Amino acid sequence: MRTSELLAPTLRETPAEAEIVSHQLLLRAGFIRKAAAGIYTYLPLGRRVLAKLERIIREEMDRAGGQEVVLPIIQPAELWQESGRWEVYGEEMFRLRDRHQRQFCLGPTHEEIITALVRSEVNSYKQLPLLLYQIQNKYRDERRPRFGLLRGREFIMKDLYSFDRDQEGLNQSYAKMYQAYSNVFRRCGLDFRPVQADTGAIGGNYSHEFMALASTGEALLVYCQKCDYAANVEIAAARALPKPVAETPQPLKEVATPGQKTVAEVSAFLGITPDRLIKTIFYEADGQLVAALVRGDRELNEVKLQNYLGCRHLVLADPEKVMAVCGAPVGYVGPVGLSGVPIYADLEIPYLVNAVAGANREGYHLTGVNPGRDFKADAFADLRQVEAGEPCPQCGAPLSQARGIEVGQVFQLGTKYSQPLGATYTDEQGQEHPIVMGCYGIGVSRTMAAVVEQHHDEHGIIWPLSVAPFEVVIIPASLKDSGQREAAEGLYQELLAAGVEVVLDDRDERAGMKFVEADLIGYPLRLTIGKKTLSQGTVDVKWRHEGQEAALPREGLVPRVKEMLAREMEKYR
Amino acid sequence: MRTSELLAPTLRETPAEAEIVSHQLLLRAGFIRKAAAGIYTYLPLGRRVLAKLERIIREEMDRAGGQEVVLPIIQPAELWQESGRWEVYGEEMFRLRDRHQRQFCLGPTHEEIITALVRSEVNSYKQLPLLLYQIQNKYRDERRPRFGLLRGREFIMKDLYSFDRDQEGLNQSYAKMYQAYSNVFRRCGLDFRPVQADTGAIGGNYSHEFMALASTGEALLVYCQKCDYAANVEIAAARALPKPVAETPQPLKEVATPGQKTVAEVSAFLGITPDRLIKTIFYEADGQLVAALVRGDRELNEVKLQNYLGCRHLVLADPEKVMAVCGAPVGYVGPVGLSGVPIYADLEIPYLVNAVAGANREGYHLTGVNPGRDFKADAFADLRQVEAGEPCPQCGAPLSQARGIEVGQVFQLGTKYSQPLGATYTDEQGQEHPIVMGCYGIGVSRTMAAVVEQHHDEHGIIWPLSVAPFEVVIIPASLKDSGQREAAEGLYQELLAAGVEVVLDDRDERAGMKFVEADLIGYPLRLTIGKKTLSQGTVDVKWRHEGQEAALPREGLVPRVKEMLAREMEKYR
Repeated sequence: MRTSELLAPTLRETPAEAEIVSHQLLLRAGFIRKAAAGIYTYLPLGRRVLAKLERIIREEMDRAGGQEVVLPIIQPAELWQESGRWEVYGEEMFRLRDRHQRQFCLGPTHEEIITALVRSEVNSYKQLPLLLYQIQNKYRDERRPRFGLLRGREFIMKDLYSFDRDQEGLNQSYAKMYQAYSNVFRRCGLDFRPVQADTGAIGGNYSHEFMALASTGEALLVYCQKCDYAANVEIAAARALPKPVAETPQPLKEVATPGQKTVAEVSAFLGITPDRLIKTIFYEADGQLVAALVRGDRELNEVKLQNYLGCRHLVLADPEKVMAVCGAPVGYVGPVGLSGVPIYADLEIPYLVNAVAGANREGYHLTGVNPGRDFKADAFADLRQVEAGEPCPQCGAPLSQARGIEVGQVFQLGTKYSQPLGATYTDEQGQEHPIVMGCYGIGVSRTMAAVVEQHHDEHGIIWPLSVAPFEVVIIPASLKDSGQREAAEGLYQELLAAGVEVVLDDRDERAGMKFVEADLIGYPLRLTIGKKTLSQGTVDVKWRHEGQEAALPREGLVPRVKEMLAREMEKYR
Repeated sequence: MRTSELLAPTLRETPAEAEIVSHQLLLRAGFIRKAAAGIYTYLPLGRRVLAKLERIIREEMDRAGGQEVVLPIIQPAELWQESGRWEVYGEEMFRLRDRHQRQFCLGPTHEEIITALVRSEVNSYKQLPLLLYQIQNKYRDERRPRFGLLRGREFIMKDLYSFDRDQEGLNQSYAKMYQAYSNVFRRCGLDFRPVQADTGAIGGNYSHEFMALASTGEALLVYCQKCDYAANVEIAAARALPKPVAETPQPLKEVATPGQKTVAEVSAFLGITPDRLIKTIFYEADGQLVAALVRGDRELNEVKLQNYLGCRHLVLADPEKVMAVCGAPVGYVGPVGLSGVPIYADLEIPYLVNAVAGANREGYHLTGVNPGRDFKADAFADLRQVEAGEPCPQCGAPLSQARGIEVGQVFQLGTKYSQPLGATYTDEQGQEHPIVMGCYGIGVSRTMAAVVEQHHDEHGIIWPLSVAPFEVVIIPASLKDSGQREAAEGLYQELLAAGVEVVLDDRDERAGMKFVEADLIGYPLRLTIGKKTLSQGTVDVKWRHEGQEAALPREGLVPRVKEMLAREMEKYR
């Protein structure tokens, strides 16, 4: 490809809308453009990266026994009503009607439609196990689409579904996919970690997320340096319990705390540490008001609360509803004297003695609050977020924390879909059983962004060779110099003929500008032809991921470049 | 691939819903399944054919200088309002709202979004010409989805858009694409013909359709055997005019024609030939009632009428509206005495003498109708459909007729989109000009069906090697015979290692059933291992497209098969 013909419009300025580096660089280097909020066009360089990612994914899925299919994007509502998820998805699902007023959605995921397919086409144990996958657009009408390709409304996913006779079969399919996913992300050059994960709207009983480690990641994870434990904090169990406090219970006392609402304000005002406070948070769980209690120094974990309650929708309660129940605004509410609302308390709450809580009266808190004596929780559960340094639930060593981008997730679904949709098989004895399923997703466009989050510097992107849009760029320092121009053209033709993915920067621009752009786009290997090197019969060769430039003889350069590329590619096998 | 693992569910019965052979065979052979009306899932075999088609298309687009991008499927309404097509598309466009009530459509085509992209990213003549393409789902909410992949609501298209400085540049891009399209369809093994075509909702001023010839095709085309003229009948000009009739005009006379409504009925009843009748058809053109006249033996061509009127929507008029204007029901209406409705007459009408038309009175017709004397048309135009045997508008030789499946269409758009959307470039002198555009579509999924329409027999599909899901199938006649089983396995492994796309039928089924299935699916080359051939050291080899089976020595078979495949593949270069 010649740069003069390539549509790769680079931007000098960082677009204001782009908050994180992958979004900034993919826009600036001309890989993507925004078409609408959370909806992107992939320009030629972006499409080339996608094609490489898709190829790696296909190879690994095929190797694991997957068969590729193409499922519809537009799906009839009936199937989603059968599985019960037409409601679960709420506003996140794009819905539409056809000219006959029949309802459809744009698939946020494809469990329903593939289960319906397998229900019709599979009936014997002889047809199992079966692994079907596709690479296809998915649609989720995110409340806040952002971070470019990381949280879009239209995005590209690979989704594979496994169909087995029993749990043992599922375990094998799951293990195959776990391995295939590790291969995919390794080959894409990602530093990643599989972690135990919540199953969310997909459901099922066992799941891992594959996290690309990145400080900008939306996910928080904990992991143990001693054993193999790693989990999304959403589900990481809090193992540590506080030591009992040897303190005499004091009587309840209402104290004025005017204008003091937050934990920080109240604890400073009263001269106590935040772990003496009880934080009371009201939620609406499928429309019903509930109160959740955690210690003042802890974060409530909404995923744990939702899983404990088993509700479909959990949202912070409307402040006016809280006011109606407590008689006080948020900031002054507490469990003492609260009635008509179930109270769910974290496991640390019963260990508190002489705690502080809102008095359910504006401008007042209570001191000397003693759980059990002053209020009764309806239930106790692990509701708080685990923090770094807490003991590993597996081995007890202190946990470390990191942020990650979820690039893949694997689920053991069991019979969650096959049961309601009636996908069964008949065994050797003629007995009918529900098929046991798993599902496995990779965010393809998100992986592209995750790679950039991990591979860049202040000058631009540093593509791993395995997913780079091109392998080599040739830059003649001055196109006006016919010797340089011809030398560049000759090298370009030779590399093309040798099957190298090469770009020739044939624009009549300043050399400095061309270097800056090549660094921004992130071509792995740069070959520069200048006046001096030309006269010496050499070419300057530089890896984007290394600082050093080397003058290599022009003679025999093409096989040498091929060899360098092959060696570098070894990193991603 | 082993048949025991492949999801290729064949059907013994022809599904009742499938009217044409490609639909029947693609369902029966397990390539596709219906998910909803006009919406299909591609099973593994179908996906493999699609992948081959897409690869051929990519190669030809890239060779012609195309750069691949990925455009959004879900597109904001604003862009379509800018171009004025939000209205034009009417009910055929799937529309939806996001959670913020913003309007979107599912792209039926992508002119708007790519013009908006180019408007932002291209501003200099240096960036032109530019050819951008994608392979992507498209959506059209057809009134009557049918014929399987031929007229779906969700379908796969390759669309390319060209951007040039001027008409001369567009001519060059158009010629390149015309050539690329010819290459694509030739390589897919299609018997096709490019024909002049109407531009429809895409617009522009010049267009060709690429028609795969098939008796089941929805399109009717005429072509000249003497010169290169070929056109969709929708736009084929009627060159022949009748000879003047030497007959004395008779007075108008009302005759009773009780229960005689159609041309056939009236002409038989009155004992005249149908070419003496005037057919009067009422339409609503963008809501306004108009009357169109053609001779009784002719078909009115709605595309010609719509193009002549320049209206957006043309539909047959509501019979009650016709009744209100004429005072008679459809079947007894005519131009004499008609007022308040513009009359458009075909060019043959003024040649009529003593014609017959509806009397605008139920149960009556008029004889002795003489155009000009008895009614005045508001305009005369070529409104009728051309028929086989009429003279070629280019050379005068008699035209032939054929039916075709439109697998591709190319359009010269000119500035139809760049003008309203403001996509301009600046020339060497700093002058701004609108970019001159073309667009070029290939129905990828439709091409798959067209190939089957052309390549099948009573036993099933006969895939051209270039687009076959696999190249070779190995059938051991009896899997119970360990000698046959091992020989088949050995040959399978050897072919796999040689890079051949091979399926091993490893199911313990009757040989006859396996042959029937292999013929239905249409694997190009069949290798059969039986008891007798095994003992003779040979393998039975048979091309699906030929009748003859040959026993070839097992020794050296793999290189020989490779050579046979390579030779066969030469047909599709």
